[in-house]
Amino acid sequence: MAPLSTLPEPDPGLGEYLYALVERLYPLCRSITGDGLRETLAIVSEYVPLAIREIPTGTRAFDWTVPKEWNVRDAYIKDSAGRRVVDFKQNNLHLVSYSVPVHKTLPLEEIKAHLHCLPEHPAWIPYRTAYYSEDWGFCLSHDAMQSLEPGTYEVLIDSRLEEGSLTYGEYLLPGRGKDEVILFAHTCHPSLGNDNLSGIALLVYLARHLTLGQRLRYSYRFILAPATIGSVVWLSQNSSGLHRIKHGLVASVVGDPGHLRYKRSRRGHAEIDRAALQALKDSGKKYEVLEFSPWGYDERQFCSPGINLPVGRLTRSPNGAYPEYHTSGDNLDFVRPEYLVDSLHIYTDVLRILENNCYFLNTSPQGEPQLGRRGLYRKTGGQQEIEEHQLALLWVLNLSDGKHSLLDIAERSGLSFKRLCRAAEDLLQCRLLTLAF
Amino acid sequence: MAPLSTLPEPDPGLGEYLYALVERLYPLCRSITGDGLRETLAIVSEYVPLAIREIPTGTRAFDWTVPKEWNVRDAYIKDSAGRRVVDFKQNNLHLVSYSVPVHKTLPLEEIKAHLHCLPEHPAWIPYRTAYYSEDWGFCLSHDAMQSLEPGTYEVLIDSRLEEGSLTYGEYLLPGRGKDEVILFAHTCHPSLGNDNLSGIALLVYLARHLTLGQRLRYSYRFILAPATIGSVVWLSQNSSGLHRIKHGLVASVVGDPGHLRYKRSRRGHAEIDRAALQALKDSGKKYEVLEFSPWGYDERQFCSPGINLPVGRLTRSPNGAYPEYHTSGDNLDFVRPEYLVDSLHIYTDVLRILENNCYFLNTSPQGEPQLGRRGLYRKTGGQQEIEEHQLALLWVLNLSDGKHSLLDIAERSGLSFKRLCRAAEDLLQCRLLTLAF
Amino acid sequence: MAPLSTLPEPDPGLGEYLYALVERLYPLCRSITGDGLRETLAIVSEYVPLAIREIPTGTRAFDWTVPKEWNVRDAYIKDSAGRRVVDFKQNNLHLVSYSVPVHKTLPLEEIKAHLHCLPEHPAWIPYRTAYYSEDWGFCLSHDAMQSLEPGTYEVLIDSRLEEGSLTYGEYLLPGRGKDEVILFAHTCHPSLGNDNLSGIALLVYLARHLTLGQRLRYSYRFILAPATIGSVVWLSQNSSGLHRIKHGLVASVVGDPGHLRYKRSRRGHAEIDRAALQALKDSGKKYEVLEFSPWGYDERQFCSPGINLPVGRLTRSPNGAYPEYHTSGDNLDFVRPEYLVDSLHIYTDVLRILENNCYFLNTSPQGEPQLGRRGLYRKTGGQQEIEEHQLALLWVLNLSDGKHSLLDIAERSGLSFKRLCRAAEDLLQCRLLTLAF
Repeated sequence: MAPLSTLPEPDPGLGEYLYALVERLYPLCRSITGDGLRETLAIVSEYVPLAIREIPTGTRAFDWTVPKEWNVRDAYIKDSAGRRVVDFKQNNLHLVSYSVPVHKTLPLEEIKAHLHCLPEHPAWIPYRTAYYSEDWGFCLSHDAMQSLEPGTYEVLIDSRLEEGSLTYGEYLLPGRGKDEVILFAHTCHPSLGNDNLSGIALLVYLARHLTLGQRLRYSYRFILAPATIGSVVWLSQNSSGLHRIKHGLVASVVGDPGHLRYKRSRRGHAEIDRAALQALKDSGKKYEVLEFSPWGYDERQFCSPGINLPVGRLTRSPNGAYPEYHTSGDNLDFVRPEYLVDSLHIYTDVLRILENNCYFLNTSPQGEPQLGRRGLYRKTGGQQEIEEHQLALLWVLNLSDGKHSLLDIAERSGLSFKRLCRAAEDLLQCRLLTLAF
Repeated sequence: MAPLSTLPEPDPGLGEYLYALVERLYPLCRSITGDGLRETLAIVSEYVPLAIREIPTGTRAFDWTVPKEWNVRDAYIKDSAGRRVVDFKQNNLHLVSYSVPVHKTLPLEEIKAHLHCLPEHPAWIPYRTAYYSEDWGFCLSHDAMQSLEPGTYEVLIDSRLEEGSLTYGEYLLPGRGKDEVILFAHTCHPSLGNDNLSGIALLVYLARHLTLGQRLRYSYRFILAPATIGSVVWLSQNSSGLHRIKHGLVASVVGDPGHLRYKRSRRGHAEIDRAALQALKDSGKKYEVLEFSPWGYDERQFCSPGINLPVGRLTRSPNGAYPEYHTSGDNLDFVRPEYLVDSLHIYTDVLRILENNCYFLNTSPQGEPQLGRRGLYRKTGGQQEIEEHQLALLWVLNLSDGKHSLLDIAERSGLSFKRLCRAAEDLLQCRLLTLAF
Repeated sequence: MAPLSTLPEPDPGLGEYLYALVERLYPLCRSITGDGLRETLAIVSEYVPLAIREIPTGTRAFDWTVPKEWNVRDAYIKDSAGRRVVDFKQNNLHLVSYSVPVHKTLPLEEIKAHLHCLPEHPAWIPYRTAYYSEDWGFCLSHDAMQSLEPGTYEVLIDSRLEEGSLTYGEYLLPGRGKDEVILFAHTCHPSLGNDNLSGIALLVYLARHLTLGQRLRYSYRFILAPATIGSVVWLSQNSSGLHRIKHGLVASVVGDPGHLRYKRSRRGHAEIDRAALQALKDSGKKYEVLEFSPWGYDERQFCSPGINLPVGRLTRSPNGAYPEYHTSGDNLDFVRPEYLVDSLHIYTDVLRILENNCYFLNTSPQGEPQLGRRGLYRKTGGQQEIEEHQLALLWVLNLSDGKHSLLDIAERSGLSFKRLCRAAEDLLQCRLLTLAF
């Protein structure tokens, strides 16, 4: 008898721990390279034994090349009275990421070509990047923009763009077999809470939680890397092991009040897609399913045509679904402990389905077996209704012909995966069921 | 030219005959074994030449064993004044089926653990069974329960549980070929009208009606057996002939005022499933389609994973769809002749579709054949509309390429099966159509 | 690099030219044979170098035979005062097509068996035919019918039914390859505007417009022939070349104010079916999709089971969708230039999709290629939204794995075919895409 994997429910109190990690990481100035990114991974290593990789500037990664490393000491715009009217030290979103070094005094009109604001949300600072364009710029609120007086200003960007490396972290939790589930979060965003400190925190606590699982079927690989270039680099550095990846999820924006949204993998109906949908359906809460599209987060790289891994994306409110996206509005108030732990629950549920989505064989397939003499059926017959657990026993028996997995049975019966798991356990116990392979 | 099968419409007056048989069988105390079951089959044999099988106690049937035979002479609860307050002779539902012999005087409190009633329907006696649990009990209305005074009562169950046999009946109506359609009704319920005397009566008259058919393609096997153990025993006794069964229906609860409901076979889209749906759709009456589920009547056994026959279930109001189910409310008033004959009609329609669901070849497949010179097309052209019969001729010609059966053509065209049959007959007549195989 | 085909948008001013051709052809008395049909094709030859075929009376065509040729000099019903109360010379719809010669004086009662009118549209003359029934008749408005006084009338039909031929016209516009698209319009209707002078005019101008295309992939075969017998004859005369036909459309009733309606080919989901739907969807205008049915226009012959070509039908308001159908109400007022040119636009769009529905290969399929360094991506990152052209680039790259055509990509992405074509062009230009085969 091959017993099923077990994975306990996460403790609701974990929400506070998840949130505390978000708070701790929030002030750092992350980008796709640099010391902020390095410090972030160092902090994560206190929770999970992360392997840190440094990939040198100039390394080829498919169609891409690892860029120079970017670091900033200071950046500001000072008015003629010497006051910092825009100040990187107050909020690292003020500086366009990857801005080249600048020190000039310029009239406001010339500076304005380098300023970004959001007239439709006048109090928020937008988040902008210029990774590959050797440009510079500042971001500020529309209100601040409006209050700039004509005149000349001193612009300083004390940044360095130098040979260095791109940093990512990786952690493998070994299971019974070599087949892997990958869990990816991007790590390149500066002081933004939901996108994507929430994803980092969720993966950290999910990794810890999985160590409580028993007889895990899969090995779990956690990858924390900068968006786009980071996943491209990871894929190019690890291409010989991609065949081991059976399922994957991109974790991001998982701490906001919105409902959960699952975006299908490019394959559309892979096991991960079906497992995620089943978990969301079984949750009884509001959720949404998004078809695959090549626009989004790092699933774009995992789902590129030459890679085409079954990797979906499980978020709360993704890009386009909340106005705070990529602005200073995505701060520590926008993320809440209860949403973080709710997301952790669903991630756990999805993995529990993957772990236990087995094919069974009914050992007494001709006619129904006599459940009564095994104590699995009520003694008095004739009632109008059947209990859900008995119905689950009948469904598992009926479809366990080696051609239907437990997830197939859940989809066809309309019963929850957990309910069917409990039925399968009872039937394994009394040897009416065996694993098909 | 291979002519199609014919099967006339049942006479609407048959409803009274069907009902009379229900009335005649109603008083008998049937169970899964015993003399009531034997008498029932003896009465049916007056109408249809049934072969009666006796399967001894202890015979193995897959995971089951034929139980001891159960018979009852008398059963009651008497109050201290000697009055029968619960009396099997008044209504055989009062005794839990398969109750072991008992003769005791007991205080009411101790008896109550053995009493069953329905508070939500206070006037009805429930129907309960204890086939495999060596227990005893009485069923009574909630009103009667309420009126029982505290005190001691004499309990008598004069039943016998002895070596004997399980009885079932079978009748094979031979057709042109060896391929079989099976029609099953369960026979183990005591004084209940709709469940399942209606099913027995329907099969009896369907068997008689089929003898009016001409050139029947299939052989028809009628099986009357107790529920669950009966179908399991039948399957285990007849496993070498199961490959001949091409289609099947479980007939039950076909006499009540509810609309017709077809429950799909485990295969879901077998020919029987499609034929039943087409007949229901063509009827123009309200109907419902239920997906397969391993809960229900004897289709559970025919659709177990190791048997997996294309057997559906065609009922009016099944378990869960009417409150009278398994209570004394399912009596001779609940069953009506008009519903019995309406059900017989649909059964006939389904079988007519199976009989004539052929693959044809258009003998003039390039372009349309010139129907006009064969007298199959109106003489004056130019009208806005086309007559339905002409449209049916065109559909049959267009899709008769050997890959579409008449049922395929009905599904694609939206025309009724009968309409397409008439078109196929006309086209066979003028040799524009031949049977494909 | 294999550049895509190009086909410009038709000039909106073409509507007037299309309408002028309808006007010019309107007065002729066409039928399935005869001089009116011949003159029609002669006029068309002034616009397009049509090859004219004459198929002699008695020629076999599958199940049919080319009938005698029919011509009319005069036809009328005169009252006792010598007034023509029904006069072919006033409107050729007055005479039932293929009426045999008659010259008799008859009482009104006897004549009435040969008269056709439309009580539900009292002012319109119906259009009726008697091609294969050696009969005669007149059509008149219900109002005219009502005003006929009892008495005797002189009936004259000065027609000839003689050995002759059936005439059809054909034009092949050669493309790069031998694969053909056929475009069919029927030519047998007398003074009716929408049905089917609109179709003839559309095909004439479509043939001229296609000569403006560059690098056309397909050869285009235009067929103008009488309905039913004409397409049957064409098919039987050209059966050795049918394997070259990859797609086809039947053009008819394309000049009325109704919305466009596409009727699927018998195959249902052939490339032509999908291309037509995509063009209609992309148009942003109201449209309707009709499932295949063996009733309609000449698609019936192209979609007969022994031919089964992927030929759909693209009309505005077909038979059954407008009351003027086959009546004098379908006149020069019912057809309008703006609808003719709108139909021409959609036909052009459908052909443009067929021309460019290629399979591509992303030459950098692992991860996304870096569009930014090729000038295909905005320089500043971080925005909430993506431009539609950039999204189209990503979709084409993501699905260009040699298994998805551009139409597949349009269907999955929801983007318009034109948008995806432009993206494919950009990607071909910078060698991120090549043709798959």
